[in-house]
Amino acid sequence: MTPGIGPRAAVALLERFGSAESVFHASRAELESIRLRPETIESIMARDLLERAAAEIEQTRALGADILLLDDGIYPALLREIFDPPITLYVQGAWEACLDEPTVAMVGSRRSSTYGQNTALMLARELASRGITIISGLARGIDAAAHRGALEARGRTIAVMGTGLDQVYPRDHRKLAEEILEQGGALVSEFPLGTPPAPQNFPYRNRVISGLSLGVLIIEAAENSGSLITARMAMEQNREVWAVPGNITSRNSFGTNYLIKGAGAKLIQQWQDIVGELPPDIAARLLPPAVKKGEKNLAAQLSLVPEGLTGTEQAIFKLLSTDTPLHIDQLAEASKMTVSELSGALLGLEMRELVRQLPGKCFVRRL
Amino acid sequence: MTPGIGPRAAVALLERFGSAESVFHASRAELESIRLRPETIESIMARDLLERAAAEIEQTRALGADILLLDDGIYPALLREIFDPPITLYVQGAWEACLDEPTVAMVGSRRSSTYGQNTALMLARELASRGITIISGLARGIDAAAHRGALEARGRTIAVMGTGLDQVYPRDHRKLAEEILEQGGALVSEFPLGTPPAPQNFPYRNRVISGLSLGVLIIEAAENSGSLITARMAMEQNREVWAVPGNITSRNSFGTNYLIKGAGAKLIQQWQDIVGELPPDIAARLLPPAVKKGEKNLAAQLSLVPEGLTGTEQAIFKLLSTDTPLHIDQLAEASKMTVSELSGALLGLEMRELVRQLPGKCFVRRL
Repeated sequence: MTPGIGPRAAVALLERFGSAESVFHASRAELESIRLRPETIESIMARDLLERAAAEIEQTRALGADILLLDDGIYPALLREIFDPPITLYVQGAWEACLDEPTVAMVGSRRSSTYGQNTALMLARELASRGITIISGLARGIDAAAHRGALEARGRTIAVMGTGLDQVYPRDHRKLAEEILEQGGALVSEFPLGTPPAPQNFPYRNRVISGLSLGVLIIEAAENSGSLITARMAMEQNREVWAVPGNITSRNSFGTNYLIKGAGAKLIQQWQDIVGELPPDIAARLLPPAVKKGEKNLAAQLSLVPEGLTGTEQAIFKLLSTDTPLHIDQLAEASKMTVSELSGALLGLEMRELVRQLPGKCFVRRL
Repeated sequence: MTPGIGPRAAVALLERFGSAESVFHASRAELESIRLRPETIESIMARDLLERAAAEIEQTRALGADILLLDDGIYPALLREIFDPPITLYVQGAWEACLDEPTVAMVGSRRSSTYGQNTALMLARELASRGITIISGLARGIDAAAHRGALEARGRTIAVMGTGLDQVYPRDHRKLAEEILEQGGALVSEFPLGTPPAPQNFPYRNRVISGLSLGVLIIEAAENSGSLITARMAMEQNREVWAVPGNITSRNSFGTNYLIKGAGAKLIQQWQDIVGELPPDIAARLLPPAVKKGEKNLAAQLSLVPEGLTGTEQAIFKLLSTDTPLHIDQLAEASKMTVSELSGALLGLEMRELVRQLPGKCFVRRL
């Protein structure tokens, strides 16, 4: 609340004085020595905010919420890693349980298309049903669809707010916020209670969305969209950045296509693409092996040719094994096919995730 | 025409005997020594095809077409580079003028969506109007849209056929083929006159489409699409492979999105993305500098702030120069903005192609 103190100045003060309490016991000379603004020094010396802070804590608790401090042991570890983590974080609901699971942020335009909203809903549902916590910003459009997808899957979701916890914005999302809490999700904000929606606060909110997440999926974004800023911040936070492509004729997909084309975002077609980019232990747990049935008889399973393959694909699949890579020339010789025919069949098998290409044009079956 | 002789065997024969004529003067023992099939040897010894070949040449000339041989000086240079170039290539129309210009192939599903067809039409028009020759396969759907886009721009286009030159397929594309010829384009086929449409010929046709081109743009492709085979072959021919993204909910974009996600195809949003990937001399000639007006007064131009920028973008743009890269921290200090605000503004400027990011988070204006 202290005027002139943002996240970076707060961290500097904490580093200099050891604790928030010590800051308020510092002498004027000490405070002046670190180049604070006069009104900041006056406010700290006057201690007139301490009473308001005590009231704020009380009100927050009355709301059933809590305030986490940056130097708390329980402060979210991923968020602490970023350049400018909030020093106080208001949390309401089962935030610890939410953050115990892998976290994926989903963001996008407020003025989104039906395509964008359906995609957000579908991907959030698929990810949340597999225990991934969906993080978004409670805004209209993509954000709301992402939260709703998680709720539909009976999964967990965190809404990071750009207002005080008691000021749900937009107001007609109050029911959505309630449902998130009821279903084991959480609301999070760095802003004091009563903070109204102010445009300048939303970029700060966005860095918390990406900061709490292993990666950020941009569903739709127009040319000058806040979601693109979130994407850029996520990159600066060393988080994964994913984007859903869309028709190049759609304004709403201009930004996501651009992120894939020019900014290194990974193209996402389905939930597996995201899970495959999470840390290996999580990916291995969530991505089922391609063939699931008949696990007791691996040999029988390996001799099984999946259904729905073309004749050529079947022939190539039978030639391949799970452990000895074959070069495309060996395949051409064994199958009596041309490289062109082979290429098509191999691509088909790769797309069904039955076959993996190794460096040097070698191929093996996936297990 | 000789039974059992495909492109590779033909090349081997030419290498062994020096010329096609010498092959027909070879002894049975010589032919047997290189492991040809008995019926192939019989056919060569009997020389019974020579008469048919003479008639074929005559008919081809009567059609106003010509036959190029792999060892002709005028055989298309790009096509000669591929693994298995056709030894004879039937050409009709202004093929030399077409191949004197940069060539870009555009292919996609026959059963394409309106989105795909519009995109093909638009990109072909944009590229052809800048002197790029559009190469495609005269098929329904994307191919036809690509040819038509080039024609609309009064540009050049080559149709590579999977049938004999006299067997336009599908038959209702005969008018399209005529228009292509009338407007300084060309028809090309490796198949003898009279060859009917046969499914097994189209993959061969596809390798000629990519073989004649600097790169291949896949507009739309479903999961098991011939266009994906063309993409893979283009990669094996070391040609650029580009793909237009589309909604992940569209069957027709599954393959193109997959190519971008998993096969290294570059995402294309607009014609400039393709031109930018052509050899540098061509790209430099076709891509106009970002600011075109007032070239006489470069200084005035440089001090000009483009229209339509946000206040933040304007401020950042003014801080940047065309020759001295500034680090993002320097920009933050000079602009008194947070890195988050800066990131958004810089991304906006990058997307308008006003600013370029250099390695190490440094930024300059584009010229």
